Amino acid sequence: MSVTVVGSIAYDRVKTPFGERERMLGGAATHFALAASFFDEVRAVGPVGDDFADEDLQTLQTRGTSTEDVERVAGGKTFFWHGEYGWDLNSRETHDTQLGVFEHFEPKLSEGSRSSDVLFLANIQPDVQRGVREQCPDAGFVALDSMNLWIDIARDSLVRTIEQVDCLILNDAELRQLTEKPNLVQAAREIFAMGPSVVVAKQGEYGAALLTQDHFFALPAYPLETVVDPTGAGDTFAGGFVGYLAARKGERDEEALRRAMAYGTALASFNVEEFGTERVQRLTADEVRERVGALHACTSWVDVPLEQRA
Amino acid sequence: MSVTVVGSIAYDRVKTPFGERERMLGGAATHFALAASFFDEVRAVGPVGDDFADEDLQTLQTRGTSTEDVERVAGGKTFFWHGEYGWDLNSRETHDTQLGVFEHFEPKLSEGSRSSDVLFLANIQPDVQRGVREQCPDAGFVALDSMNLWIDIARDSLVRTIEQVDCLILNDAELRQLTEKPNLVQAAREIFAMGPSVVVAKQGEYGAALLTQDHFFALPAYPLETVVDPTGAGDTFAGGFVGYLAARKGERDEEALRRAMAYGTALASFNVEEFGTERVQRLTADEVRERVGALHACTSWVDVPLEQRA
Repeated sequence: MSVTVVGSIAYDRVKTPFGERERMLGGAATHFALAASFFDEVRAVGPVGDDFADEDLQTLQTRGTSTEDVERVAGGKTFFWHGEYGWDLNSRETHDTQLGVFEHFEPKLSEGSRSSDVLFLANIQPDVQRGVREQCPDAGFVALDSMNLWIDIARDSLVRTIEQVDCLILNDAELRQLTEKPNLVQAAREIFAMGPSVVVAKQGEYGAALLTQDHFFALPAYPLETVVDPTGAGDTFAGGFVGYLAARKGERDEEALRRAMAYGTALASFNVEEFGTERVQRLTADEVRERVGALHACTSWVDVPLEQRA
Repeated sequence: MSVTVVGSIAYDRVKTPFGERERMLGGAATHFALAASFFDEVRAVGPVGDDFADEDLQTLQTRGTSTEDVERVAGGKTFFWHGEYGWDLNSRETHDTQLGVFEHFEPKLSEGSRSSDVLFLANIQPDVQRGVREQCPDAGFVALDSMNLWIDIARDSLVRTIEQVDCLILNDAELRQLTEKPNLVQAAREIFAMGPSVVVAKQGEYGAALLTQDHFFALPAYPLETVVDPTGAGDTFAGGFVGYLAARKGERDEEALRRAMAYGTALASFNVEEFGTERVQRLTADEVRERVGALHACTSWVDVPLEQRA
């Protein structure tokens, strides 16, 4: 079994209150792969340019990720993003985006990548996501991320793509924007009506919520004394969440989904401790397990009815 | 045993996307008392004007709350607030605030109110809060709320007041503003250094976090399909939280604090289902217990280490 992820492989220039990096490995597929590779074989699909360094390809291959479908475009430049975060890390400004080889990206998946049981469509044009979805008709579980840009300029295409996936993973502000429902429970109902049976609302420093037809579940972000760089936190979360489910081989009950949320949350918390992929690339499975346990300790409480007065 | 709350008793004019009320009973002490009265006898302390209706006094007395120290000021007008909420209920605009009898409020607590073991200082001028604190030297547990206004114009006084309480309950944005630390864990450490041993960060639709010297705990808000009016949610939360602890008679360990968070969260979720005090005044203890159980179901997950690949 394996997990296929289609999305950006990028160089990021990032400034946060804790420092900056001129050019570091990034991109949604990269962060997803580094997290999901703890659980299952990952197959990364995306284009890079001539400027993509061999050592970065090796980083992408951490824990056995296949880069068979990482297409090196001759004469092209790797996707580049330049952003800066505000003092509380909740706001960020994009200074520059250069699509490079991503502009004309037409994914053609190898037989190996098509045969994965689990597929993650990271944030790219919804038309492209749908094309990939159609190349993997037998995938048992397909999850999708998107962003406000596509809701603004390609809403119809995005909705048609959402109709073909099992799970939507989106920032809660984007869920509101997409459904025009300010209330998360109502927003999820709109999404269920489109097709998916699982909605994950990413809530940044507040954690994430999981909504299914009959259940609501929420986990806080793991409390950290210092967050250095939030870049890639959402994709790292998705890598832990989707990767965990892949390892559970078809079990998608509430118990599996909730533990997947915990693994996603734990992995995302490591990601933000350092810049880019720096922390997760040297992370160990023992550290992940330990943090999942620590997260459990932050969320457990006993429900014993109190003898109330009235 | 009893819980004393000092704070506003008010009339609110409120407009939300779901309707409006021209003049409804409100105020921090009111919302607190209606919630805390499920757990222990509440003694409400605050001024009202000639215009305060007998039926509103009766509402304040729900579940046995003592209004012995509700001072009716001859010729005075009851505190009045007029506000309006935006479409997602996360933003609100204040159209009018008339302090009325609150402007020259100098609380003088009766022997009964001074002898409570638990004291809640709702959001008023920090000088006045400190005066009340000094009238209750024997209180075993004192919790305090405040707001951005006092951080702006009376920070030194607020800090001196915080130094004399056990628990600070504040919106997370206000915690950041007060401590100038964007990170919640760091912000709580600043507060611990001032004196309190318990910090509760209210996070609106995301729930609330509890920070103590050695532990972090977070609970989501209870998921509701429709939130009608958020007014008083924070004080209702405080009433459930502090009231529960009062009923636990001196037990303030992590287990008690976490269950107090759950009762606060459950009560706040009822409060926002209807305007003002409408829902909580007719609420039953069975409904509260049932919602605490439902909240537990929204936050439970099993921590069983997965056999990871790497």
